[in-house]
Amino acid sequence: MALYVQKFGGTSVGSVERIKKVAERVGRFRKEGHDVVVVLSAMSGETNRLLALAEEIHKTPSPRELDMLISTGEQVTIALLAMAMEQQGIPATSYTGAQVGIVTDKSYNKARIKKIDTESVSSDLKAGRVVVVAGFQGVDEEGNITTLGRGGSDTTAVALAAALKADECQIYTDVDGVYTADPRICSKANRLEKITVEEMLELASLGSKILQIRAVEFAGKYQVPLRVLSSFEDNEGPGTLIVADSEEQNSMEDPLISGIAHHTNEAKITILGAPDIPGVAAKILGPISDANIEVDMIVQNVSPNGESTDFSFTVGRGDYTKAYSLVEECVAEMGAGRILGDNAMAKVSLVGVGMRSHAGVASLMFKTLAENSINIRMVSTSEIKISVVIDEKFTELAVRTLHSAFGLDKSE
Amino acid sequence: MALYVQKFGGTSVGSVERIKKVAERVGRFRKEGHDVVVVLSAMSGETNRLLALAEEIHKTPSPRELDMLISTGEQVTIALLAMAMEQQGIPATSYTGAQVGIVTDKSYNKARIKKIDTESVSSDLKAGRVVVVAGFQGVDEEGNITTLGRGGSDTTAVALAAALKADECQIYTDVDGVYTADPRICSKANRLEKITVEEMLELASLGSKILQIRAVEFAGKYQVPLRVLSSFEDNEGPGTLIVADSEEQNSMEDPLISGIAHHTNEAKITILGAPDIPGVAAKILGPISDANIEVDMIVQNVSPNGESTDFSFTVGRGDYTKAYSLVEECVAEMGAGRILGDNAMAKVSLVGVGMRSHAGVASLMFKTLAENSINIRMVSTSEIKISVVIDEKFTELAVRTLHSAFGLDKSE
Repeated sequence: MALYVQKFGGTSVGSVERIKKVAERVGRFRKEGHDVVVVLSAMSGETNRLLALAEEIHKTPSPRELDMLISTGEQVTIALLAMAMEQQGIPATSYTGAQVGIVTDKSYNKARIKKIDTESVSSDLKAGRVVVVAGFQGVDEEGNITTLGRGGSDTTAVALAAALKADECQIYTDVDGVYTADPRICSKANRLEKITVEEMLELASLGSKILQIRAVEFAGKYQVPLRVLSSFEDNEGPGTLIVADSEEQNSMEDPLISGIAHHTNEAKITILGAPDIPGVAAKILGPISDANIEVDMIVQNVSPNGESTDFSFTVGRGDYTKAYSLVEECVAEMGAGRILGDNAMAKVSLVGVGMRSHAGVASLMFKTLAENSINIRMVSTSEIKISVVIDEKFTELAVRTLHSAFGLDKSE
Repeated sequence: MALYVQKFGGTSVGSVERIKKVAERVGRFRKEGHDVVVVLSAMSGETNRLLALAEEIHKTPSPRELDMLISTGEQVTIALLAMAMEQQGIPATSYTGAQVGIVTDKSYNKARIKKIDTESVSSDLKAGRVVVVAGFQGVDEEGNITTLGRGGSDTTAVALAAALKADECQIYTDVDGVYTADPRICSKANRLEKITVEEMLELASLGSKILQIRAVEFAGKYQVPLRVLSSFEDNEGPGTLIVADSEEQNSMEDPLISGIAHHTNEAKITILGAPDIPGVAAKILGPISDANIEVDMIVQNVSPNGESTDFSFTVGRGDYTKAYSLVEECVAEMGAGRILGDNAMAKVSLVGVGMRSHAGVASLMFKTLAENSINIRMVSTSEIKISVVIDEKFTELAVRTLHSAFGLDKSE
């Protein structure tokens, strides 16, 4: 008999009917003899409803009061789920973050968990009760309610699993696992049975927004087996297990790459012939960052003559116009450089711990793209990832052909 | 400079606009230099919305989970009001019942306050902050959230005022005070400047549902000056002050009566000629009570021959048919008695500490009713109250003529 921490997100508890379904699912685990701790988000839409009320009152409300307000969302769902468990004859107790002893620092709206007191949870589990915990929230050492930031319920679940030494932390979502590529554009995408934390981190930050990055990091750090599964009744499968990566797992049997992520709506700005002097990158990116524009990829090359440099970066398409004009100002100030811009770009990334020991990934990738007449506009690499920027219109073609080339297609 | 505890009910915080109005009102007190602790209910309708969600899941949910659920209502309003105070430039901090240290017993849904830890409130007040406290809720000694029952926010306010030794506890409502009679049926009704706790208790239980009875009792017990005022902008007046009654206040100058309460939708059932033996009253009322029917007035007279008794009681009109049939069964069982019933009755009550020292109240009351051809069907008295049951159609006539007869009419 195992101990599971099961997390259900806002869509999974978005209505009374769905809450009853969650209770049934948890009940099945309980009836099999497993101990279950459930972590819940607020009903979908509730947090936004509360934020809208706050905004009508104060444009920049006190972060403490904001946390006081939005933490009510999860408190509602935990009480309702505990009732639904009892309706099924399964004893259950709900706890707010404060009650369960999730102590955080004082950073309202984006607090970090410092410690968890598992005493009451453990004694409830021993007494045969299902424990239902409010995700996303905690309490600082003075008793003020804090929240962990959007998606923080995943972190609550992983942290509880670590503190309770649970056998598995199961994150129920609206997808049934992590795929080798986005199934919406690549019909041959496969569900991965297993993926390493490192790979998951690269995939998550690239747009496969299944799990909160912090939760994945946490799982890696505390060696919590983390599983992503579907919360939909008609899609019960084993999901994808995210394992803490270790050297042993990086064996010759590992596939070259685990998955292909893509991200559209990118824009690219290039400054040709900028003076090749120290601090030029900071000079160009400083105003961009001051304007709160997030920069993704950055590539710099020394020009052939060694006196000037070509500098490129990508931003979200929505920030393109603003970023372009900031760069124009900068170039005017420097008195050198020519600007090229394109706001219809996409990023396609190959991710896999297997590529650590295989030099040939990049060349197979470039060859495949070339065979399909897809121009590469920018390249960036990390130890387990290669990202290329291409014209947006080629996104689907690139993902599908790379998927085949790297042997990821599912066998029919 | 005084310390005020101000309580605003669900209607007063029923929308963002109304919350802003409350913030303005509290702000005015603060700017005059007073310390203010605000106690809030949930936005009107919110508690019922949450209860409806619970009912969809479980007909009789666990009382603990119900309190977990509905206590979120006040948590939302306190955060929003604290934001609205800050929007006005007035520092404010909100506290849940648990945070402010309102410790109760373990009777979920109807908990009683055991103690209040005022440390954080006092230090916030000293620092010049407005303190906003969630009404209606507390926490038991094990940290479980409890609620005080419907209307419990009044009790929270009075208890906080007592613990903080506040100069006044102000309950803002949708009426501007306590009246000598219901102004809707008696146009000459006067707002009372002052009323004793004892009188208020009799008036409240008779249908002038302005304040929760427990809160009034609490105010009497702890000698908290309690004021009822209007929360509406266009109706700012001094309201009515409810004072702990003491012998001194019961002086010759006291008016004979303070107010007239009335209650329609009453039904009366009489058993004539019941056997005059011990336990007959219990025999008749036992089944009524078992059926959860609330009995209000009970009157019993020995019959002239001393062998049988006439026994009358009143119930709400909605319970009349059920009660009548239960009495029929009982009479059949006893083999004696005749039943009379009437389901169109009203109760009119005179209340006043002044009547303690004046024997003439009853005779003036009966004479006035007789002059207006109003038959008295039942009489019941307490030290500071006389209630009569009359035909419902005479209710308004009775209230108006008694109001004039006892000198309560406002001078034009």
